Amino acid sequence: MGGMSGDLFAKVRGYDSYAFRRELEMRDLLPYFRTLQGPPAAVPMMDGAPRVNLGSSNYLGLSGDPRLTEAANLAAQRYGTSVNGSRLMNGTTELHLRVEAAVADWFGEEDALVFGSGYTTNLGVIGALVGEGDVAVCDAGDHASILDGAALARGRLLPFRHNRMDRVEALLRRAAQADGGILVVVDTVYSMQGDLSDIVGVTGLSRRYGARLLVDEAHAVGVLGPDGQGVAALACLADAVDLRMGTFSKALGGGGGFVTGPADVIDFLRVQSRAFMFTAAAPPGAIGAALAGMEIARAAEGEERRVRLAANTARLRAALAELGFGVGPVPVSANEVEVQTPILRVPAPDDLTAARMWRLLYDQGVYVNVALHPAVPKGQAQLRVSVMATHTEEHLERVVDAFTVVARKLAPELPADLATSRA
Amino acid sequence: MGGMSGDLFAKVRGYDSYAFRRELEMRDLLPYFRTLQGPPAAVPMMDGAPRVNLGSSNYLGLSGDPRLTEAANLAAQRYGTSVNGSRLMNGTTELHLRVEAAVADWFGEEDALVFGSGYTTNLGVIGALVGEGDVAVCDAGDHASILDGAALARGRLLPFRHNRMDRVEALLRRAAQADGGILVVVDTVYSMQGDLSDIVGVTGLSRRYGARLLVDEAHAVGVLGPDGQGVAALACLADAVDLRMGTFSKALGGGGGFVTGPADVIDFLRVQSRAFMFTAAAPPGAIGAALAGMEIARAAEGEERRVRLAANTARLRAALAELGFGVGPVPVSANEVEVQTPILRVPAPDDLTAARMWRLLYDQGVYVNVALHPAVPKGQAQLRVSVMATHTEEHLERVVDAFTVVARKLAPELPADLATSRA
Repeated sequence: MGGMSGDLFAKVRGYDSYAFRRELEMRDLLPYFRTLQGPPAAVPMMDGAPRVNLGSSNYLGLSGDPRLTEAANLAAQRYGTSVNGSRLMNGTTELHLRVEAAVADWFGEEDALVFGSGYTTNLGVIGALVGEGDVAVCDAGDHASILDGAALARGRLLPFRHNRMDRVEALLRRAAQADGGILVVVDTVYSMQGDLSDIVGVTGLSRRYGARLLVDEAHAVGVLGPDGQGVAALACLADAVDLRMGTFSKALGGGGGFVTGPADVIDFLRVQSRAFMFTAAAPPGAIGAALAGMEIARAAEGEERRVRLAANTARLRAALAELGFGVGPVPVSANEVEVQTPILRVPAPDDLTAARMWRLLYDQGVYVNVALHPAVPKGQAQLRVSVMATHTEEHLERVVDAFTVVARKLAPELPADLATSRA
Repeated sequence: MGGMSGDLFAKVRGYDSYAFRRELEMRDLLPYFRTLQGPPAAVPMMDGAPRVNLGSSNYLGLSGDPRLTEAANLAAQRYGTSVNGSRLMNGTTELHLRVEAAVADWFGEEDALVFGSGYTTNLGVIGALVGEGDVAVCDAGDHASILDGAALARGRLLPFRHNRMDRVEALLRRAAQADGGILVVVDTVYSMQGDLSDIVGVTGLSRRYGARLLVDEAHAVGVLGPDGQGVAALACLADAVDLRMGTFSKALGGGGGFVTGPADVIDFLRVQSRAFMFTAAAPPGAIGAALAGMEIARAAEGEERRVRLAANTARLRAALAELGFGVGPVPVSANEVEVQTPILRVPAPDDLTAARMWRLLYDQGVYVNVALHPAVPKGQAQLRVSVMATHTEEHLERVVDAFTVVARKLAPELPADLATSRA
């Protein structure tokens, strides 16, 4: 006898953004799933035409670099194209151990653990550490993987308003009354806004209330700080942070994610973290590329690329501000240093205008990302402009020309008050 | 002022299995994280010696195959070593679209979606489909990724005792009284026991109570069924199953996971599944290898490898039963067909004996997996023996010799009643 339950699949039509997405599709304004026909280089072929790539996290331009391709190939030749299982059971090659040693050495930590991706790193670390009775205190702007990790953990998630240290303190004061442990988790660079965590505030508060601190350096590793170590090192606070995580798949041009910190914590994760134990190890090719990418990022060449990346970002930020786009000022770290994170946020008045801005740029050979809900809170549509070290002056000129057309064509719809940076 | 909360890191020492693990380490009995010095082939180098590989999911022997290595290399050359971001934003290459089309074609479904791993596939599919008020009905023996997916979902998880269809019916009858939708999730081949789901029972009950059914074919894809399509197809029930998922990283020798089914459901997942949207796309090399592996698995060569795999498994099962190990009878599908799943479960009386059995085998050049809690319920320690198509008669003889030594040396500790297969 059939029951009266609803159909689980009823939700696959008519959900929240369903109609809007169909409308974008019909008007050929959908900014997602655009097809790459080559590596995510400075100007890849996309949908049949070359476009300046401002929509990738290939910040140093290492994916597509022949040295990484060669390293991936050697790794696959030596260790196979798959390890066919979990690190625990059958997936630990010499290469996986070597990359973990390299990460720990780079960050000056005791040990490191490599996961299949950055997403599963956060899931696995937070899921294992925040047990029953514990609390995860997270920035509401934290990456989805952090919020999912906290949701999966047995402990409670206490989110605070983006970068509001007064809220952090209120939550910590409350949490400190209970018996459980506390894990504070913040991104050091926020992937959508491109702004920085208040790393000084958050380390100070964590220490004061006996909380442990995990920072997500996904968009900072290889990009910011001494030797590309990230924001904690840049702020000279690496020792005040308990755990740092990052990913190989962005600036480093490989695959997989990692966490680094004290040996006993890493060792605990090695045998207690479900998202580490119950999933396939990263393929040897992805790890081989990561090792090669890390070597370049740590060396003088990495520093040269970081300098070019920062210069390109500064150049583009100034030009977009000049055109009236509200890219905002250069993020400033707590020790008053200007930090050119490679992500520029270009706010849009609404979702449809964001899509139209995107299309105008795309048609002129410039690819940017568009963030609509749920990637950003409702009503905060934006373009995300991700700069690369390998963009040339000529590429950037083409970008500025394209944004100039957007500014002219959409001027009536772009509210003047968005152009805060002009003030 | 500092609170009185506990230290979150206190748990990293002295947890449940901590002392036992230290003991195993001290006695050099720890069966985990053994280092591969080459591809997970039939007899790889591990810890400085060749060992017959009964501890991998490289069932068809495709990882290490030069054709896959070449395919991975070409993919990395063409598309880079990383796509540096999510499928949605910047990670969709022609290769990703091609592999999705190939999966849908293989399974005869409308569409398919490729994730970064099998783990995130289950997390992302279940997490997106089982909403507030919905219910996930899962076998307690389901893979960790299914249980984690259900834990992450907003709906409720209702687990049932392994393969007990009366319990499934009781749960479905209860769930059908409520308004929400129901998703039933089972593995088709259970990764630890090597037994089969009652696919006939579970499809019948799902249909009867208006539930949707997702099956995890991770250990069956490429291995069982017509063209290696898996168990649902083998039982002629592919049409009765709503969604099938699997992984490229086991028999197919690549990286990533997939789900295949109706176009509207796949399309929903494409823009609503967090574990799909907020993580890096699988690296081109992993996808290139998967495409090459899939082509071989579907072709006549795949069938030849499946025949050899089944023969090797039958040969080993019979030999181990003969020696008195309780490997159990050949799993029989509901339509009375014997199905040689490539996983043999060798029960052990306790955790320490399991580790000693493992060590004895290892020292004789035979690598098997050991499952202790939490991979299996407490008190159900076992060896897991995973057979490969590329094991030769000589390899299998070496394995039988090694198990003969184990049987002789540990005979007093191996209870006779474990040898159920001898009855």
